[in-house]
Amino acid sequence: MTHTVEDGHRLDRFRELWGEIAPIGRDERSGGYLRYAFTEPELRLREWFREQADARAMPVTGDGNGNLFAWWGDPDAGGAVLTGSHFDSVPHGGAYDGPLGIVSAWLAVDELRAAGVTPSRPLVVGAFVEEEGARFGVPCLGSRLLTGQIDADRAGRLRDAAGVSFAEALGARPAGADPGLLGRFGAFVELHVEQGRALVDQNAPVAVASAIWPHGRWRLDFTGEGNHAGTTRMADRRDPMLTYAFTVLAANKEARLRDAHATVGRVVVEPNATNAVPSRVTGWLDARAAEPDTLDGLVEAVRVKAGERARRDGTEVTLTEESATPLVAFDGGLADRLARLLAAPVLPTGAGHDAGVLAAHVPTAMLFVRNPTGVSHSPAESATDADCAAGVVALARVLAELLR
Amino acid sequence: MTHTVEDGHRLDRFRELWGEIAPIGRDERSGGYLRYAFTEPELRLREWFREQADARAMPVTGDGNGNLFAWWGDPDAGGAVLTGSHFDSVPHGGAYDGPLGIVSAWLAVDELRAAGVTPSRPLVVGAFVEEEGARFGVPCLGSRLLTGQIDADRAGRLRDAAGVSFAEALGARPAGADPGLLGRFGAFVELHVEQGRALVDQNAPVAVASAIWPHGRWRLDFTGEGNHAGTTRMADRRDPMLTYAFTVLAANKEARLRDAHATVGRVVVEPNATNAVPSRVTGWLDARAAEPDTLDGLVEAVRVKAGERARRDGTEVTLTEESATPLVAFDGGLADRLARLLAAPVLPTGAGHDAGVLAAHVPTAMLFVRNPTGVSHSPAESATDADCAAGVVALARVLAELLR
Repeated sequence: MTHTVEDGHRLDRFRELWGEIAPIGRDERSGGYLRYAFTEPELRLREWFREQADARAMPVTGDGNGNLFAWWGDPDAGGAVLTGSHFDSVPHGGAYDGPLGIVSAWLAVDELRAAGVTPSRPLVVGAFVEEEGARFGVPCLGSRLLTGQIDADRAGRLRDAAGVSFAEALGARPAGADPGLLGRFGAFVELHVEQGRALVDQNAPVAVASAIWPHGRWRLDFTGEGNHAGTTRMADRRDPMLTYAFTVLAANKEARLRDAHATVGRVVVEPNATNAVPSRVTGWLDARAAEPDTLDGLVEAVRVKAGERARRDGTEVTLTEESATPLVAFDGGLADRLARLLAAPVLPTGAGHDAGVLAAHVPTAMLFVRNPTGVSHSPAESATDADCAAGVVALARVLAELLR
Repeated sequence: MTHTVEDGHRLDRFRELWGEIAPIGRDERSGGYLRYAFTEPELRLREWFREQADARAMPVTGDGNGNLFAWWGDPDAGGAVLTGSHFDSVPHGGAYDGPLGIVSAWLAVDELRAAGVTPSRPLVVGAFVEEEGARFGVPCLGSRLLTGQIDADRAGRLRDAAGVSFAEALGARPAGADPGLLGRFGAFVELHVEQGRALVDQNAPVAVASAIWPHGRWRLDFTGEGNHAGTTRMADRRDPMLTYAFTVLAANKEARLRDAHATVGRVVVEPNATNAVPSRVTGWLDARAAEPDTLDGLVEAVRVKAGERARRDGTEVTLTEESATPLVAFDGGLADRLARLLAAPVLPTGAGHDAGVLAAHVPTAMLFVRNPTGVSHSPAESATDADCAAGVVALARVLAELLR
């Protein structure tokens, strides 16, 4: 790879802007970020967003749901190209998931202006609220509100762990769906750090997304009989922990057989005492697959295997769908066009994004930037400055193409 | 079984005394008991203990550790026969575990007096504090203090979940070991509800204990790599939940192979989020066996199996002993003598008791009363009034024998 003076300047520009937000909300102990919606770090990031918009003479409008939009060009012109992402993080999340898309958007604006581009339609930098769902429990809350995928009153009543409602945090009842605003967008492009290692394997800094896998979460309730760990003969037990453990291993095996993903990362035990056979174990299955049929088959296989083991253990198990998101196929023509433009690979992803929510309303594309560790939702999430700068260049080229 | 007028009277007497304490500390919702040491329900039970002692003209002395002793006869006479148990419960525990031994002790005193027995040595009814360890974390705390098995300063500093120390709850630094008081006891008999189903199988209302199995708890720390559940390929994961799940099943299998007991009833997961591969899972193994070698072999097998699976999962596991209690063989001659006297079976138990602590200092025996459900440490724990009355008769016969 050749390294030009221009590349060096881009690296410096990225490092400068990235450095402005890097300390905000960082936990010194874990090295991860605590940037929950409307908490002090996220409010500071919103203020920083407004400062960036001011510096570029881009007026900021809100949508009454907590989402922010900065406009280059007349909002009434229509056919606007929206780019951006979110500021909020999961607990002790990585630096890049979300903020990279916003920082890259500002730098792409600068690239376009430096190149003398005069957009024939508006360019909008956006920041969506509560994408992770880490504070109020519903992922992509801001984009769901804007598109009407969640009822505004229901969203307003969502409460955080301290009992504060989303409406209280927002300072008002959320405004809900805004078809008028949505109708002004002709395209949405979200740049995001990759959350796996496909780009490492393919030796490419940037990819274009093809689809978001259908995915969901299912609650597994295992019930047995609480008992004394010391005195209850093994043969007399009805221990739901055994059924839970078997089901964790079965879900893993069934997912591998289907090239799908299954995770049991959360468990609650009653009474959760060392010397007690549990009376109840609740586990949550996160499952994702490339095709809806594969996902259905995976979840059904887990249900059957858990039931079989429950009969053996003398326990009971129920599987309840808590949420399910269908396959999001991004605009195929758009993805192919951008992949050709960038000579970049096209990849599906297993993670939900605001882009997945907006895709049902606006032609939408995503760009991924290589993540050397492949780790996300963790302090180990990473991206090199050079790849981030390459992401900015790719985003600017995509925006220039869409603004023609 | 013939049913005599005397049996009917005994049933009435049991029901009457049992009814006095049955409502104290009962949780209406679970039907279980919340009787933690020095909380209001347990303080009311202590007051009830003093009232029972007063009614029988038996002066009560404390030992400065929270244990209570009511004396029939001159404490200085020596060779006293001690009987009793504890009032405190596990969270939502059963009605019988502990209190049955104290209620039976008072009724046995009444039986002896009604039979005109004049003890040639003192008879003492005792109530030990914090037997379950449910409030301050150390089981048999009262008997351990009295016998010097735990340092008084260390015990005083133990804190409950709200930060209150044992010394604060007791109202003083615990007095610790009292060899003088222990030296006055010639025997200890603890009557206890059975915590398994052996007496159901043997069709007998009462048994004599032979031994308390060696037992302990081991902490299993499984570490992997926290990651995004949606985007991390199965092959790239280092998921400690898989190693945990395998180890739970391995512990169960290894215990069954050895006629031993293994339980994993407590687990803590980080970050315990539905959409995150955990970075760490901690489980606690409770293991018990008839022989020390069997127990050692069981724990070692679990360690080996967990390590093998960890290599497969790309995780790490460590096994740390948190506590271990050696085999307690009750006085064999005494157990045989009482079993012959009562024509009762002799059984080992997997549960720790104050009797297990005192056995190292005083010739000690235990009586078990049949539990139809076999369940303990749960609201489902049970005993029929008829079996409880039979337990009183058995205890009175044992005491009469020992007081001769």
